[in-house]
Amino acid sequence: MNITIIGGGGFLGQKLARALVARGTLDGRQISCITLADVNDPAGITDARVPIKTARCDITDPASVAQVVTGETDVIYHLAAVVSSHAEEEFEEGMQINLHGTLNILERCRELDSVPLLVFTSSLAVYGGEVPDPITEVSLLNPQSSYGTQKAIGELLVNDYARKGYIDGRGVRLPTISIRPGKPNRAASSFMSSILREPLNGQMANCPVDEDFQHYYLSPRKCVENLIRVAEISAGDLGGNRILQMPGRTLSIRQMIDAMTAVAGSEPARLITWQPEEAVRQIVGGWRFDINADRALALGLEADGSFEENVRAYIEDDRPAG
Amino acid sequence: MNITIIGGGGFLGQKLARALVARGTLDGRQISCITLADVNDPAGITDARVPIKTARCDITDPASVAQVVTGETDVIYHLAAVVSSHAEEEFEEGMQINLHGTLNILERCRELDSVPLLVFTSSLAVYGGEVPDPITEVSLLNPQSSYGTQKAIGELLVNDYARKGYIDGRGVRLPTISIRPGKPNRAASSFMSSILREPLNGQMANCPVDEDFQHYYLSPRKCVENLIRVAEISAGDLGGNRILQMPGRTLSIRQMIDAMTAVAGSEPARLITWQPEEAVRQIVGGWRFDINADRALALGLEADGSFEENVRAYIEDDRPAG
Repeated sequence: MNITIIGGGGFLGQKLARALVARGTLDGRQISCITLADVNDPAGITDARVPIKTARCDITDPASVAQVVTGETDVIYHLAAVVSSHAEEEFEEGMQINLHGTLNILERCRELDSVPLLVFTSSLAVYGGEVPDPITEVSLLNPQSSYGTQKAIGELLVNDYARKGYIDGRGVRLPTISIRPGKPNRAASSFMSSILREPLNGQMANCPVDEDFQHYYLSPRKCVENLIRVAEISAGDLGGNRILQMPGRTLSIRQMIDAMTAVAGSEPARLITWQPEEAVRQIVGGWRFDINADRALALGLEADGSFEENVRAYIEDDRPAG
Repeated sequence: MNITIIGGGGFLGQKLARALVARGTLDGRQISCITLADVNDPAGITDARVPIKTARCDITDPASVAQVVTGETDVIYHLAAVVSSHAEEEFEEGMQINLHGTLNILERCRELDSVPLLVFTSSLAVYGGEVPDPITEVSLLNPQSSYGTQKAIGELLVNDYARKGYIDGRGVRLPTISIRPGKPNRAASSFMSSILREPLNGQMANCPVDEDFQHYYLSPRKCVENLIRVAEISAGDLGGNRILQMPGRTLSIRQMIDAMTAVAGSEPARLITWQPEEAVRQIVGGWRFDINADRALALGLEADGSFEENVRAYIEDDRPAG
């Protein structure tokens, strides 16, 4: 089985590749090769028991997509995106990568004789506006950002290309991933990892919202497990709507900080400053957190047991040594 | 005020143009010119008190769109589409016209210094699948056809381009229009006019579904009135979601035929044959008819009073002489 991870240079693509290598199989079939494709040269994985290729790929260019999605490709993970604040500030770039890039991948699949399995990662940003709580499988997608709009369009396209038989498509709306390793990025949700990650690394971080701000979270570790599970659900079990809400947990900022303190002591929380940031508040203030993921849970996807688990996973998997 | 009607050669575009000419104003402003743009050379309107231009326009070509949407254009009606069965059979053409064509119009608006008002016509085909009745303003768009998918994407884009300030956007999901004048087309709903129009013209027509088949209808006359009303609603009254369900009436085939008989006597109904057509049944069987349009009604859009009105409107407005 050949797997291509588009966005394979990102933290989630790298973690997914490592998890797939550790398993050696997907859906009971031996993995013969993993291709990590990314607009930036992706890091390879050196201790791999499975051959790993890396490829530079610009998804806005159909010819570039054709290099990494071929008749030999069995499974595609499409994780590449321009994130929320970035797509809001640079409309053109967001449209090119999030909409036309996704279309290029789908069109490449359509022109193949084979029917690859494609896992598309969507986002909570598809929700918003005057839609009643809780958000369920039958709630209107009412995005309040260009990023959310582009992800909602990706969902519609994945469903239609699957219905037409061009792909075996699946989509998952990711909760906000926390604690995300690495550096802050241009997602409006970036602080939802920074305010824990930086203090756990002994550094200061600012929280731009109040401590009672609530949101819906999942650890990178559980997210990767769920991404693998999504590819293993039989198409028949997915039914007519191939997009699932990936399960998460609803927490306030205060609950997240308390969990960090329970795991790592009282020092890290003292490194958090509380300067309000209006631009961030405006975007995340419209996000939804009362979310029902029953269908995904019934299909075997899982949330973390508690946010303490997220903190421990970061310390075990990602905290820089020393 | 300059108005461009894209799809201005179609029956709805022509009726809209005539109605605008008859009024002479839109939203209290004098109409200075109407441009009828269509992929086929649109018919002009000869007795016009308002100057009418006609233009051939291929919306898959940005340069062609730029000819009919300019800095002088105040209002755009985007009625052009490849219809349901056509888009299902010719996937590529549906994507090019319904998705990329709509994108080309929106992108043209974005590059202008002005902010034109744009009315986008969506469809009931955005609804479907396992979404509970009644369909409301907050129901998931869950299209079961490529046409419905492309229309749902258009809705998302219109909302986002409006939110970003590139257009003053409005969308309306049209009920099935009956009695539509002219010839059968490649919409799966085509028979919902044919079974009344052809018999009223003294011709045979086939009904491919059972007489208890229910659907949601509006007359062309009321549809045109609503399209004008949509352009006159103040942006503030539309709120965050600029897409409205245009009101209609839910009727069975039997109720429609009975209304025809009440208006035109018992002869026309004898001209209907009842040969089941599986391909049509499969598409229209998934369509929704239990639809709540309260928000549009509150904003001044209207349904027909009874289907007898639709029959009378056809006889008065559209039935060929003799």
